[in-house]
Amino acid sequence: MTDTLALAGSLADPLEDGDSLAAIDLGSNSFHMVVARYTLGQLRVVDRLRETVRLGEGLDGKGGLRAEVRQRALECLSRFGQRIGDIPPQRVRALATNAVRQLAVPQAFLVPAENALGHAIEVISGREEARLIYLGVAHAQPPKPTHRRLVIDIGGGSTECIIGSGFDAIERESLQVGCIGSTRRFFGNGKLSRKRWREALAEVSAEFQQFAAAYRDLGWQEALGASGTNKAIGQICAAMKLTKGAVTAEALPQVRDQLLAADRIDDIDLPGLSAERRPVIAGGLLVLEAAFRTLGLERMAVSKAALREGVLYDMLGRGSEDDPRETSIASLTLRYGIDAAQAARVEQTAVRLFDQVARAWQLGADDLLMLGWAARLHELGLTIAHSQYHVHGGYVLEHSDISGFSRQEQQFLAALVRTHRRKVPKSAFDALPERLLPAARRLSVLLRLAVLLNRGQEAQAIPRLEAVADGDLLVVRVERRWLDARPLLSTDLQGEPADIAALDIGLHIQAV
Amino acid sequence: MTDTLALAGSLADPLEDGDSLAAIDLGSNSFHMVVARYTLGQLRVVDRLRETVRLGEGLDGKGGLRAEVRQRALECLSRFGQRIGDIPPQRVRALATNAVRQLAVPQAFLVPAENALGHAIEVISGREEARLIYLGVAHAQPPKPTHRRLVIDIGGGSTECIIGSGFDAIERESLQVGCIGSTRRFFGNGKLSRKRWREALAEVSAEFQQFAAAYRDLGWQEALGASGTNKAIGQICAAMKLTKGAVTAEALPQVRDQLLAADRIDDIDLPGLSAERRPVIAGGLLVLEAAFRTLGLERMAVSKAALREGVLYDMLGRGSEDDPRETSIASLTLRYGIDAAQAARVEQTAVRLFDQVARAWQLGADDLLMLGWAARLHELGLTIAHSQYHVHGGYVLEHSDISGFSRQEQQFLAALVRTHRRKVPKSAFDALPERLLPAARRLSVLLRLAVLLNRGQEAQAIPRLEAVADGDLLVVRVERRWLDARPLLSTDLQGEPADIAALDIGLHIQAV
Repeated sequence: MTDTLALAGSLADPLEDGDSLAAIDLGSNSFHMVVARYTLGQLRVVDRLRETVRLGEGLDGKGGLRAEVRQRALECLSRFGQRIGDIPPQRVRALATNAVRQLAVPQAFLVPAENALGHAIEVISGREEARLIYLGVAHAQPPKPTHRRLVIDIGGGSTECIIGSGFDAIERESLQVGCIGSTRRFFGNGKLSRKRWREALAEVSAEFQQFAAAYRDLGWQEALGASGTNKAIGQICAAMKLTKGAVTAEALPQVRDQLLAADRIDDIDLPGLSAERRPVIAGGLLVLEAAFRTLGLERMAVSKAALREGVLYDMLGRGSEDDPRETSIASLTLRYGIDAAQAARVEQTAVRLFDQVARAWQLGADDLLMLGWAARLHELGLTIAHSQYHVHGGYVLEHSDISGFSRQEQQFLAALVRTHRRKVPKSAFDALPERLLPAARRLSVLLRLAVLLNRGQEAQAIPRLEAVADGDLLVVRVERRWLDARPLLSTDLQGEPADIAALDIGLHIQAV
Repeated sequence: MTDTLALAGSLADPLEDGDSLAAIDLGSNSFHMVVARYTLGQLRVVDRLRETVRLGEGLDGKGGLRAEVRQRALECLSRFGQRIGDIPPQRVRALATNAVRQLAVPQAFLVPAENALGHAIEVISGREEARLIYLGVAHAQPPKPTHRRLVIDIGGGSTECIIGSGFDAIERESLQVGCIGSTRRFFGNGKLSRKRWREALAEVSAEFQQFAAAYRDLGWQEALGASGTNKAIGQICAAMKLTKGAVTAEALPQVRDQLLAADRIDDIDLPGLSAERRPVIAGGLLVLEAAFRTLGLERMAVSKAALREGVLYDMLGRGSEDDPRETSIASLTLRYGIDAAQAARVEQTAVRLFDQVARAWQLGADDLLMLGWAARLHELGLTIAHSQYHVHGGYVLEHSDISGFSRQEQQFLAALVRTHRRKVPKSAFDALPERLLPAARRLSVLLRLAVLLNRGQEAQAIPRLEAVADGDLLVVRVERRWLDARPLLSTDLQGEPADIAALDIGLHIQAV
């Protein structure tokens, strides 16, 4: 970890030929790492690591993680950490998915995990996972421009179904069914039977039926499966000489019949099935059969790419004009009818302050992005009501499904909007990991000042505005004549140090 | 109180010639009642009652109410109650404003207050109060069609400023300054001085400055003042022969100088000022001077009408096609991009169920309105995220500033949306007054069933649907063939009795 508190791998400084990037995916079944080199404008994969950690198996159903699984995960991460040691931290992104989402106190796992890896780990939502999976698959098999494509990714704990066109996901669903979860839930005693299979299939199909009609209405020209379960079943179909590696509606029942020829999971005998995959293939096949049935699939090809490749391509966009987060912020601005002129004034002032204190306060490019977005969205809650609108804005940002953002980034943004006016509550940043707290406090002070200074909604920029930061002290100098003409603002500024007491930053406003 | 748990005076049954209507306003300074008779399509005021209860004076600053003031209020309400004894409850509306909004536990006052009055009392927000004031003033002085009008109502605890056109409020602001509050805050020791006045004027002006620029940009052709403070100052201006009853920028400083000729509130000597008004005129005049200064007023006429007249005219609209609440619901539907077709299906099913159980469950016209609105808005939270969208919808409805609704009505609506799916939490209806609980529980069951039955989003209506209610038992019969074709729905319906355990209603679904 460096002292630039990178929220995420960002490419605010442009990539050069030969630069390396790494994406790490802490899945419920396996942990993956992929390292790529940027060469002639392309990403070339130079290394892949995969360990079957089975994090999802360690979940105790009460939000805890069993000690030996936790240990296995930390050891794997420490090995991954050695591999990324020479890659600049802003070129690495590590994401956790469903298994970590299930933990009651994710920080209890994430803090030692980040230490083992030597890098921040972000938790993403199921829908964000779906977006990234689609991005990875789309880049691996460039789509025909007008085609729509269905992508199904069966993970250890969740399954993502996406319909997309080009490189954009149109519909994204994330279901709480996966190969580990389903095996445990339906075949927890290790026994297999046709009757149990039928019952289980009905239950899993019900999950898919929630959106199957909408998906079939939209339609697709091509279906692709991603991740271990789908790869394994494709290999079985090929080994059984049913297909050349794809999964078809005809082949699938034959694979299932062959699987159910065994009475116990341990006895499953399928050609092409690895010993490592055997313990979770029953649940995986069950989910795929439910998908085929409810979505009316005839044929699904298998993609080599998945989440981690999507993360790599997403990093190329981050910090650039194609940053998917920019698109999300713009669409929130429109949806909630935010006054763009006022937002721009606040953003401009915030950036002026930021530029003067960034070095002293060790704020980096990602922090600047976050401050700008918070400025653009700070008035979002006004759509709900004027009274307590900062709380409403924080609520919406915390709970919304915002494309391109990790959970932590969203919570960071929500916390900045929540604290942009009125007294900052002591608990304001409780949801954030410890490592983000210094940046959160500092950005909060800057945003609040920018909002206060623009309260008059004046078109003209503030004439003189100097900021000097030194540790936990911020001195801001404003032109006296300008300030004297705004008595309301002077009163507000006088109250500000008391209102930000919880931020532990001393604020001195000087009229000069 | 009757056993139709009227949420509010509603005119779902049309008015006939000779019918009476009453509006009661529990203000911070006075309680008012106005009784009108509907004659030849017009409202004619037949009775007015006013008592200077000074509820605002009873606030102890910690959310409590002093016992003797509470007693004074209850006695007044019990006298009002005698007057409305012969008016049907759905033709009476009693509203509480700022003083009750300040109470930490409003129910502790409202429950005995409702008993004393013999009618439900609703709390309204400052912005809703502003809308109703404008409506009252606009009807009393019919506006020129293209004119914009500024209305200022200085109450005991809050001041409402509205710009409107015709009968519609365009801008509405409610400030936490009023004649009682300002007198206590700035002249609490009973002493007056020019210096204190200057300081106080700066503070109160700062409140107005928050919106003064926006108001002046919009502009108006005519200004009108409403309620006791403005009336009293108009009378003083006339008694001092400065105007014929209006308040002008020229007259106001002369009144203030005459007031400040006294060193103490008790010694204030102003022509035309009643002894009853004297204790609170200083704070009232202060607020009016701040309004004149910040809004650049030259002349303000005084209106005889105010909140209570607005409530009467609002009641004429409620339950009709002009119900202002319908307009609000329609605009929420648009703003949050709600799927109108699905909402209409759910509403249709909910109404079918309602019609069959309304008599047995003593549900009235207001309950039907509420159920319909909840059906139309139940998917509102989807704009935020699919996960927990019922919670998000409840949050938005609880905190939004929804025109035409009282606080209780909004909380009722929010609770129905909050509980329309998933397990009903025990605390779901905690925010509602006791008297609304039976209706809330019953409407919740109906809405949930309507949502479940339409989960398939099918265009065709549900073929057979019978509902029989008996006390805390509801039996619903659905056509077996239709149900058998929808296994997912059958599963959902099986889980429903457990999910609604907190509602204390036994539910039996029968396939017939």
